[in-house]
Amino acid sequence: MENFADRLLSAIVKADRSPVCVGLDPDFARLPEALKSAAPVAAIERFCLGVIEAVAGIVPAVKPQVAYFERYGALGVSAYEKVVAAARKAGLIVIGDVKRNDIGSTAQQYAEGHLGRDDSADAITVNGYLGADGINPFIDVAARTGRGLFVLVRTSNPSAALVQDFADAKGKRFYQHLAEHLAGIGGRSGLVGRNGYSCVGAVVGATYPQEAFLLRDLMPQQIFLVPGYGVQGASAADCAAAFKRDGTGAIVNASRSVLYAFSQQRYAGRPWQAAVAEEAKAFAADMKQALQ
Amino acid sequence: MENFADRLLSAIVKADRSPVCVGLDPDFARLPEALKSAAPVAAIERFCLGVIEAVAGIVPAVKPQVAYFERYGALGVSAYEKVVAAARKAGLIVIGDVKRNDIGSTAQQYAEGHLGRDDSADAITVNGYLGADGINPFIDVAARTGRGLFVLVRTSNPSAALVQDFADAKGKRFYQHLAEHLAGIGGRSGLVGRNGYSCVGAVVGATYPQEAFLLRDLMPQQIFLVPGYGVQGASAADCAAAFKRDGTGAIVNASRSVLYAFSQQRYAGRPWQAAVAEEAKAFAADMKQALQ
Repeated sequence: MENFADRLLSAIVKADRSPVCVGLDPDFARLPEALKSAAPVAAIERFCLGVIEAVAGIVPAVKPQVAYFERYGALGVSAYEKVVAAARKAGLIVIGDVKRNDIGSTAQQYAEGHLGRDDSADAITVNGYLGADGINPFIDVAARTGRGLFVLVRTSNPSAALVQDFADAKGKRFYQHLAEHLAGIGGRSGLVGRNGYSCVGAVVGATYPQEAFLLRDLMPQQIFLVPGYGVQGASAADCAAAFKRDGTGAIVNASRSVLYAFSQQRYAGRPWQAAVAEEAKAFAADMKQALQ
Repeated sequence: MENFADRLLSAIVKADRSPVCVGLDPDFARLPEALKSAAPVAAIERFCLGVIEAVAGIVPAVKPQVAYFERYGALGVSAYEKVVAAARKAGLIVIGDVKRNDIGSTAQQYAEGHLGRDDSADAITVNGYLGADGINPFIDVAARTGRGLFVLVRTSNPSAALVQDFADAKGKRFYQHLAEHLAGIGGRSGLVGRNGYSCVGAVVGATYPQEAFLLRDLMPQQIFLVPGYGVQGASAADCAAAFKRDGTGAIVNASRSVLYAFSQQRYAGRPWQAAVAEEAKAFAADMKQALQ
């Protein structure tokens, strides 16, 4: 069974070496008018299936955000499962953005539900605030099923710094402390693939490139999942700080800028899926160029 | 519309002043044999409905742990919704243990799904690692719908200290820093009810009573949800540290010790629901006595 990190890196090479990911955050209010005649859950599902069709072959991965589905309860979660299945069938690596977290036996349940089923996503995001015994159950299931996880280290939202920048006497910040903790947990034998990366990655917001440089050193074996490109304000050059010099080590996510491309003036009159595909191509090209 | 903190305090008074909560963490492998002939999802749902029936009138609140349902995907989430509905119908305050977390627009989606629907739980748990703009969307929806939230501050698991005890130059620890942040966010006007408590509470593990004393001072307006009683190792006296001198300010949760009481030798031969009710009574009496 192939290590998740190796699978992801192969998928990136196959997608013309574009280390990018499209986030599926389907907001009913922003969908193409043609889809809005359906009930919200049916509409967001159809929209995601359309986006998957548009971006498969252009990008290596998608990241469905489960919150947009959970908003509609169990019915929405059922749509999430269909979207995950469709994306995997289309050959995309699927990163379920679920940010689950709990301890011991409870984390084990989440891990089985989100990484342990045949139809689970290829990887999920995990919140690491509970430390090793909140993360290890996810790792155990991921290792067993050839899947992966990305643990939140540094987030890109405005108030994150107020919490995560808390510093010790030597100036080390909390998120750096968490990064060291994670590097230890995620570097264990059996978790690292043939490319030198672990199936345990990290979420590293791209708002501050100098932080990404530092975290890159602290976590040499972690693939970084980098949110923040586009609407959230990070440029491709900002995101490039999360990569190693050889251009590997990270995957950059864009959600709204690609998903809702069709509502931009320059795509007026074109089918919405064409606009999404076009914007995904531009995103992939932009990231690729920034890494050269 | 009544403030959630006031509703919870009234429910505690009504339940013979027992500030306790039974956690619904249904593990198929541990269910009564009679229930195991059904498929797992049907069995865990039936078990939870039986526990609700057994503890209603004895304890003021239950805390379903969504991970045990999500393990089974959308079908499990549907069972979770039925359990929440049954508990509310039985007059119990329902705290959905979901530990959701994300930023801005995404947190908004979670908040609508878990606090904004007519059939949502009365309160949920939230992971606060993303800071104010990861917490505020939950507060906004809770304030609108008369619901509440409990933000993770200190967890009781063994490795929590390795992460959360990270200290600054003055010896202040990260979880204390987070507690101060939360006290500020949760004390805003409009959130505090007639009893002086906010609809924004905190999860404070009970493993170390001296920590609870300190956090009690840092967060005077937060009701503490205290896990750790029973199987996790905390005694009623340990948990008492989370309360104010007047005996208010916290609610203590026990899960496995109550749920699986029927498998204890002393309950041999008795119906499983009677064992659960008996153990819930003992738990409530134990906590009440520790507060006198």
